[in-house]
Amino acid sequence: MRGCCYIALAMLARILCWLALAATAMAQTAGDSVLSQVRQYRNTHAAEILRSYAELLAIPDLATDTANIRRNAEAIQAQLQARGVATRLLEAPDSPPIVLGDLKGAAGAGARTLIIYAHYDGQPVDAAQWKSPPWQPVFRDEQGRDIPLEQAVRDPESRVYARAASDDKAPIGAILAALDALRAAGVAPRIHFKFFFEGEEEAGSPHLRAAIESYRDLLKADAWLICDGPVHQTRHMQVYFGARGVTGLEMTVYGPQRPLHSGHYGNWAPNPAAMLANLLSAMRDDDARIRIPHFYDEVRPLTSAEREALQRMPDIDGQLKTELQIARTEAPCSPPAPSPACPQEGATRIEQNIMQPALNIRGFEAGHTGAKAQNAVMTEAHASIDFRLVPDQSPQRVQQRVEDFIRGRGYTVVHDAPDAAVRMAHPRLIRLEWEPGYPAARSDMASPVARDVIAAIERATGSVYEMPTLGGSVPMYLFTDVLKTPAIGVPIVNHDNNQHAANENLRLRNFWEGIDIFAAILTQ
Amino acid sequence: MRGCCYIALAMLARILCWLALAATAMAQTAGDSVLSQVRQYRNTHAAEILRSYAELLAIPDLATDTANIRRNAEAIQAQLQARGVATRLLEAPDSPPIVLGDLKGAAGAGARTLIIYAHYDGQPVDAAQWKSPPWQPVFRDEQGRDIPLEQAVRDPESRVYARAASDDKAPIGAILAALDALRAAGVAPRIHFKFFFEGEEEAGSPHLRAAIESYRDLLKADAWLICDGPVHQTRHMQVYFGARGVTGLEMTVYGPQRPLHSGHYGNWAPNPAAMLANLLSAMRDDDARIRIPHFYDEVRPLTSAEREALQRMPDIDGQLKTELQIARTEAPCSPPAPSPACPQEGATRIEQNIMQPALNIRGFEAGHTGAKAQNAVMTEAHASIDFRLVPDQSPQRVQQRVEDFIRGRGYTVVHDAPDAAVRMAHPRLIRLEWEPGYPAARSDMASPVARDVIAAIERATGSVYEMPTLGGSVPMYLFTDVLKTPAIGVPIVNHDNNQHAANENLRLRNFWEGIDIFAAILTQ
Repeated sequence: MRGCCYIALAMLARILCWLALAATAMAQTAGDSVLSQVRQYRNTHAAEILRSYAELLAIPDLATDTANIRRNAEAIQAQLQARGVATRLLEAPDSPPIVLGDLKGAAGAGARTLIIYAHYDGQPVDAAQWKSPPWQPVFRDEQGRDIPLEQAVRDPESRVYARAASDDKAPIGAILAALDALRAAGVAPRIHFKFFFEGEEEAGSPHLRAAIESYRDLLKADAWLICDGPVHQTRHMQVYFGARGVTGLEMTVYGPQRPLHSGHYGNWAPNPAAMLANLLSAMRDDDARIRIPHFYDEVRPLTSAEREALQRMPDIDGQLKTELQIARTEAPCSPPAPSPACPQEGATRIEQNIMQPALNIRGFEAGHTGAKAQNAVMTEAHASIDFRLVPDQSPQRVQQRVEDFIRGRGYTVVHDAPDAAVRMAHPRLIRLEWEPGYPAARSDMASPVARDVIAAIERATGSVYEMPTLGGSVPMYLFTDVLKTPAIGVPIVNHDNNQHAANENLRLRNFWEGIDIFAAILTQ
Repeated sequence: MRGCCYIALAMLARILCWLALAATAMAQTAGDSVLSQVRQYRNTHAAEILRSYAELLAIPDLATDTANIRRNAEAIQAQLQARGVATRLLEAPDSPPIVLGDLKGAAGAGARTLIIYAHYDGQPVDAAQWKSPPWQPVFRDEQGRDIPLEQAVRDPESRVYARAASDDKAPIGAILAALDALRAAGVAPRIHFKFFFEGEEEAGSPHLRAAIESYRDLLKADAWLICDGPVHQTRHMQVYFGARGVTGLEMTVYGPQRPLHSGHYGNWAPNPAAMLANLLSAMRDDDARIRIPHFYDEVRPLTSAEREALQRMPDIDGQLKTELQIARTEAPCSPPAPSPACPQEGATRIEQNIMQPALNIRGFEAGHTGAKAQNAVMTEAHASIDFRLVPDQSPQRVQQRVEDFIRGRGYTVVHDAPDAAVRMAHPRLIRLEWEPGYPAARSDMASPVARDVIAAIERATGSVYEMPTLGGSVPMYLFTDVLKTPAIGVPIVNHDNNQHAANENLRLRNFWEGIDIFAAILTQ
């Protein structure tokens, strides 16, 4: 009996195993079949998809441009509705609306819910730096030559140039196309999807927290998919489980109240550019080590799983440095990097560096240089900084430490423009204006929902790198810390997209693959 | 006999003395009479004088604007010729012509010769910073309200706003009016005058030395009067016997070859703005002490006569600091200031500071600040410096010391834009572009020709401060060191003229008094 029973059980197990394998294979086949239909659809309708995306890119998308930013929201809402997604605009005073979409799956109530985040606003532009106007989308081939849309359709290495082409209208455009493709294939999502598209991410998402808290009930989900940021520099897909936080700082140091001849007054009238250079120099060194006392105190150490994930990342520093013409090489360091005590810029591997906080000078403006240089002591000098934060740093504590440090250097800190009396009372006067920013976040790399999302992407693209933290900032903390929901970053755009700079672009192959990825996720 | 002779001699001496006094008194009276006629003339013809001056200011006057800068020279030449001055244009390839004028005096050959220097080009403009276009002269009252010329004529506190209104077309305009006034009074110069007006002083006078060497014979004189720079900040007339030298430096530090997202690449990609801030910080401190080794080694100590002249200058620091809203106060220092070891900016008196060399940051440009700030690591950072030099520093030695210092900080110095191979070969790469500049100069404060010029100015305006060195730079060394001729600075314009900055202006009272001064000098 015992032997018979054992044999029967073994047979049963084998049968069950066969059945399971067959089911997986069938699902796989079904999935593959859907994906090949999606690819077929986007090949056949490529011109139409690009034309529709270019229309979205043509709407100016600065968060502060009240009328136009609303036009973006309304256009996206209309597109979602046309694809059967129930939508509403979440409004708050003096902020762009959030486009919220809801698409119930065939599995009905109780099924897993994923909510997809993207933002439809773009970075500010310096139009003079652009080869073509930022909101007039232009297609260019790999050599940078303008080409018509009809040619771009046939060349996946061609790109579309426009503000927000990559950051961050691309996932919105790809999702819309994926919904079309699935409808054409007659396939509906099984699980429940929500869409959450905000319009002031590049302005620091100042109203996002309030919106999330106000609409907490509408935003219940098993995970947020954060569709922002680029794929890996190897052009390999990656997912990320965290993002650095950010806080921005505008600094103004004051000189004489009118410009002075540098011959008659130079080395007598305080030079605000020299003062500001000296202050910045005291804040960080040439190797990106931040010299503000206690700045690194709260940095959360990496877990062993995170360290191992970093080890699995390919070493791209050599290729990147060649591409970017960066000559700095690895510097020996003890303790081993990543560590606040080690040189960072160019000295340790990029995926390690972004586990550390950063002080980036994003601008310094005082007087003029080159042909416009004037022999003058200027009245003010301005610098702009973005701090990138890691778990468990808080923007508030960082802001406090920076202000304390600056005061410790003999400065009087003000937050508004000083009047003559204030200027006359303080020999070293600095105005600090903070963008509030937000903290970093990190989610568990091993949760079931994370593994399922990764499996769907792998179905669409082969394999996926897993990054503990993205270098860039997205307000993931709102999902992980406020809503207590895991968040997984699913980027689709090329890394060399000039995002946040002039001539931002999207490589079309990334767009096409992005459509496949969203189709795979929507049909998981 | 002995007693009688003594008496006769004493009487003779007394008679001679009376005669001398009478001659002086007569000359004084004659001079005063001429000056009152000059004042009468400029009062009667004020509108005509201003209209003519405004026409000169309306000609754009950048040294690099080939066509317009020549229009200036030709207009000035025509004006001089119309007043009986023999003129010619001294030409050299690729440079604005020098307007040379010659006016023989009644005393004939062998009489003293004075040569008057001014420049007709202006500083570059940042038109966006100007309240009105830089080459459309506008009259404004003391409250800054636009007024018609007819009202400006009646208000000596009103000003004319235009590029070069003060620096340095003002003496040219005043000399032309003085010549008209003297002709109306029927008075001709006794001694020999030459006029030397150049057109590229604000570009560093790159061809002046060659011109002076080529035309050495035409330029023989007993002294040069350098008509550039402002009167004292108390609005009191001053003369100066020297000027600081100058050399300009454009610095470019290189980051990645394309702009990068500061989140994804911040603290990995070298930040050129941070590197440049650190470098500038190493070059000079907050108090204007230059930290480049041996920078002060050649500084010539002041003579006791120069120290005494400085002691006689009024203390204007308090008034200036209030006017300019500068709160820094005197810092105790041992050794006593002026000394390279002492704090300078705001800490010691201005007339002492300008006896020292200066490192003035006149511009720092990298990325953007404020509303245009972008979260990016920029590709390049630029700074622009002017060094002010004192006797016996040479621009060449200063340039060498600066380059050595920068190399000592680990930089590879290039002088042209680096290509990719150069960028890839050098982790710290800086481009340095020097404006050649020129050394400082100082003349003897006690020479007879200097005392006579001072006496003439005192006749026109009462009393005069005597400054060993002007803070600003004029190429006096060419006259003192190359031509071996004393040079005396005779400025007429207001100190608060925004020269080298936006909204440059000339206070009309300074213009009227300038006419008197030139009439007095021309009739000495």
